[in-house]
Amino acid sequence: MTHPMLTKHRDTLDRALQAIGERGYWSAYPESPSPRVYGETAAADGKAAFEAYLGADFPIDQPGPADRVATEVSPYGIPLGVRYPRADPRALIDAAAATQPAWREAGPAVRAGVCLEILDRISQRSFTLANAVQYTTGQAFVMAFQAGGPHALDRGLEAVAYAYSEMTRVPATAYWEKPQGKHDPLRMSKTYHVVPRGLALVIGCNTFPTWNSYPGLFASLVTGNPVIVKPHPGSVLPLAITVQIAREVIAEAGFDPNLVTLAAEDPADKVASAFATDPAVKIIDFTGGTAYGDWLETNARQAQVYTEKAGVNTVIIDSTDDLKGLARNLAFTLCLYSGQMCTTTQNILIPEGGIDTPEGKVSFDDVATAITGAVAKLTADPARAVELIGAIVNEGVTDRLARAEKLGEVLLASQALTHPAHADAVVRTPLIAKLGAGDSDVYGEEWFGPIAFLVATADTADSIRVFRETVGAKGALTAGVYSTDEDVLAEVETAACDVAVHLSCNLTGGVFVNQSAAFSDFHASGGNAAANAALTDGAYVAGRFRFVQSRRHVAAETE
Amino acid sequence: MTHPMLTKHRDTLDRALQAIGERGYWSAYPESPSPRVYGETAAADGKAAFEAYLGADFPIDQPGPADRVATEVSPYGIPLGVRYPRADPRALIDAAAATQPAWREAGPAVRAGVCLEILDRISQRSFTLANAVQYTTGQAFVMAFQAGGPHALDRGLEAVAYAYSEMTRVPATAYWEKPQGKHDPLRMSKTYHVVPRGLALVIGCNTFPTWNSYPGLFASLVTGNPVIVKPHPGSVLPLAITVQIAREVIAEAGFDPNLVTLAAEDPADKVASAFATDPAVKIIDFTGGTAYGDWLETNARQAQVYTEKAGVNTVIIDSTDDLKGLARNLAFTLCLYSGQMCTTTQNILIPEGGIDTPEGKVSFDDVATAITGAVAKLTADPARAVELIGAIVNEGVTDRLARAEKLGEVLLASQALTHPAHADAVVRTPLIAKLGAGDSDVYGEEWFGPIAFLVATADTADSIRVFRETVGAKGALTAGVYSTDEDVLAEVETAACDVAVHLSCNLTGGVFVNQSAAFSDFHASGGNAAANAALTDGAYVAGRFRFVQSRRHVAAETE
Repeated sequence: MTHPMLTKHRDTLDRALQAIGERGYWSAYPESPSPRVYGETAAADGKAAFEAYLGADFPIDQPGPADRVATEVSPYGIPLGVRYPRADPRALIDAAAATQPAWREAGPAVRAGVCLEILDRISQRSFTLANAVQYTTGQAFVMAFQAGGPHALDRGLEAVAYAYSEMTRVPATAYWEKPQGKHDPLRMSKTYHVVPRGLALVIGCNTFPTWNSYPGLFASLVTGNPVIVKPHPGSVLPLAITVQIAREVIAEAGFDPNLVTLAAEDPADKVASAFATDPAVKIIDFTGGTAYGDWLETNARQAQVYTEKAGVNTVIIDSTDDLKGLARNLAFTLCLYSGQMCTTTQNILIPEGGIDTPEGKVSFDDVATAITGAVAKLTADPARAVELIGAIVNEGVTDRLARAEKLGEVLLASQALTHPAHADAVVRTPLIAKLGAGDSDVYGEEWFGPIAFLVATADTADSIRVFRETVGAKGALTAGVYSTDEDVLAEVETAACDVAVHLSCNLTGGVFVNQSAAFSDFHASGGNAAANAALTDGAYVAGRFRFVQSRRHVAAETE
Repeated sequence: MTHPMLTKHRDTLDRALQAIGERGYWSAYPESPSPRVYGETAAADGKAAFEAYLGADFPIDQPGPADRVATEVSPYGIPLGVRYPRADPRALIDAAAATQPAWREAGPAVRAGVCLEILDRISQRSFTLANAVQYTTGQAFVMAFQAGGPHALDRGLEAVAYAYSEMTRVPATAYWEKPQGKHDPLRMSKTYHVVPRGLALVIGCNTFPTWNSYPGLFASLVTGNPVIVKPHPGSVLPLAITVQIAREVIAEAGFDPNLVTLAAEDPADKVASAFATDPAVKIIDFTGGTAYGDWLETNARQAQVYTEKAGVNTVIIDSTDDLKGLARNLAFTLCLYSGQMCTTTQNILIPEGGIDTPEGKVSFDDVATAITGAVAKLTADPARAVELIGAIVNEGVTDRLARAEKLGEVLLASQALTHPAHADAVVRTPLIAKLGAGDSDVYGEEWFGPIAFLVATADTADSIRVFRETVGAKGALTAGVYSTDEDVLAEVETAACDVAVHLSCNLTGGVFVNQSAAFSDFHASGGNAAANAALTDGAYVAGRFRFVQSRRHVAAETE
């Protein structure tokens, strides 16, 4: 079957399929917010479109009561006041059920075409989305543009590609002919249907509403499942825009727009739990805290639950031939979005006796000074700093930061900066504290936000022990190692495999441990406590549908 | 890396990979127990090898105490008395843990080679295995040979192929080069490790010890996980032989034989539950009753649990152009192994007003008579009957049969037959009873064994309703439909998709609804209550390992 949306995007789909097989560099959506790429008026148009949403009813027409909720508080201190329809779980679930037969019958290729058109249409609204992400999450603009738009879209496309590959690795039909000795062979034709698992729920997070939601949203949708998108009450707008575009495209494609609906809520409504335990909900994608992720895994037993939770991301410093590069690179990681990434390094393990460099042994304190100095330099000028560190997403982070100031020996204090453009923005520079290897009660937990620990270990072997123990117990999404010794690199790589965390080695340039590139880097492994799934691999998509076959006898196939 | 076992079996692996992509007819292990295939002395040698096991300590050397258990009771009434090492869970778990690093490091290709050599070596012992399966399960010889040997081996190979494909869809290494405008590009090399999930447990069943266990055993093993095989106490020997061969091959290949161990038990030991809730056990494959399968899913939370449980397999009869063929075909299904297959039809739904045939309307009673007559014919001569129906696997089935005799209107009574060669064999012909559509309290549950219900429905629409309701609620592994009306076939196919059960249409010849062909037919879908996984697809293998990557900067790749 050809559908105009599939025809339009066939080349992109094919290229994405090639990319997941090669895992080299590729991107479908331009990450540069340049007028040369997006057009001269795109930035201004996006800003205006964003501002038009503020203080108004968000324009989306879906089943449910007329009641509205406005729950977002901008980390930049600007009034938002966007009013979203308050979700009625029953109405959304019933509406989703009605969409299923036609979407299932459409088949993998048509569904992929529709998903790619949604991604393309969102891409055209990248500046609108960037503003929405920036002012709800506290990310700085360029990051909000890239992580909120093109990088999220790439991850969505990657999920579509994996799912399409998984659905089509079994042919739609087959001819089966079994010899019967002297008798006529047995001959059958077989049909393999891709049968979606059922209604999917995507629970978004406060910090990366699109990046963390698009893989689950598109993986479920392309495999035939309707999707209810439940945004974090603090970051609704980016997903509201996403859902609105999806509904528009789905209707244009001839399907029921209730395939994708928005479930905004007053936090007191607790709709996530109402959805998650409804017998109709068969798939859940969740990004957020460990406690609620564990609750979902335990209680949403009727559903396949994919969670990304908390972890203790760790870097081991053994030795380096570029201490300045190391310090610059780690400082950037610690500063980016004030360390409010699930991938930001928290624990940096350094031998108390110092590390080897081409200039000889460098003491623990000098390594620490190199790192804290690099952070201080990046955050010295508030006007430049805020373009890197952005603002603090919510009070949970400022509260945690206040508690962290009492831990260990503070090597670099967190400072409150004044945002030059937004006087009420909550801006904080990273706190860096020194701990001992014995302080695992502190560094063995996640301290989400601009909080990092330099942990003095007995030696690199001790660092590896700490790494194995903390990541083994609490999980991690990222790990790094600096060493000039191939044996040490190999040993840490083995340890990383043992605790199933992705490892970056000797990053001193323009690649950072907390960033992953779609189509090449996996995000999370699914093999430790930080997440039960990876973005995006076969395991992430294969359970979202089932093959159901029928067979019947036929006459001989003529070739 | 090339390993001699991989070199030896590379062509078979490639052919299997092709087969899962095409899903036409293919088989790697000959299903004919003919001397022309297996050699003139193979049958006698196999029987002698089987008999040598009886009344003796089974020759297997693995960690644990010297204690032995002998738990098997032959449905054919012959003394077995094979004594197996009594499993000490701690000893087996600890031994398995020690095997892991080297097996992980071996990589997918070497592991596939070793698995294929195990399969090949088992194939050479097909006659020994056939006797072991026959005399523990009650299957007749030819079935025990085919389902216990080559068909089980094909399913094992299919699982290896799916898992190998899944592990290698991500390349082992990649080169990533991201343009940076006028600056030098960012260049990285990336390594993707296949990291096994952890210790796997396979819990075998009484009726198909090899066929139902090989997919999980080989899927877990080839993906890098050590496997503990916990046979049903009634059918230990087939899996003991399997484990013994696996250990032999693994040691020859240069790995630790404790990668695969046997966990025989006295049923009072309840070792399955001890293993299943041990934190070290990360994967469980289970075939058996719904109650224990549900218990595993609820309690073995640290593990990925794959279950095949009970269901209500259903056939809808709407109309036919070959009533005799229909009756013969269904009778064979009902008789084969006394209906003791998880795929045997239980409920046959027939409109009370009869069905259309080329000879005109045939009444319900006449359709019933055609079916019961065909069953009676197949079982009339005890000497021929036992080669089809075999013996009753255990007292649970005879007890259930006794209870079933009090249900509905008995159209064909079950008879006890005397086995010509084994006077103490427990042999029973199928019971067929008539029920009404309102008797869902009876036909809505599984009655495992030689028990079938002809259910009188208002019409075919009512049959489809009953089918949707019962299979929707209790699940099913197989479904069938007979109709000369393409609209009815399409409607039933839609219903089958809705309840995610595989459908066979108008089988009147040499293919039976309760049989599935490896590499072409899926066994179970994973989409209804009868099973949470299919044998074998991507979802069945993808969760048994994780990808863990490392990355580092490199100089430009030279092409």
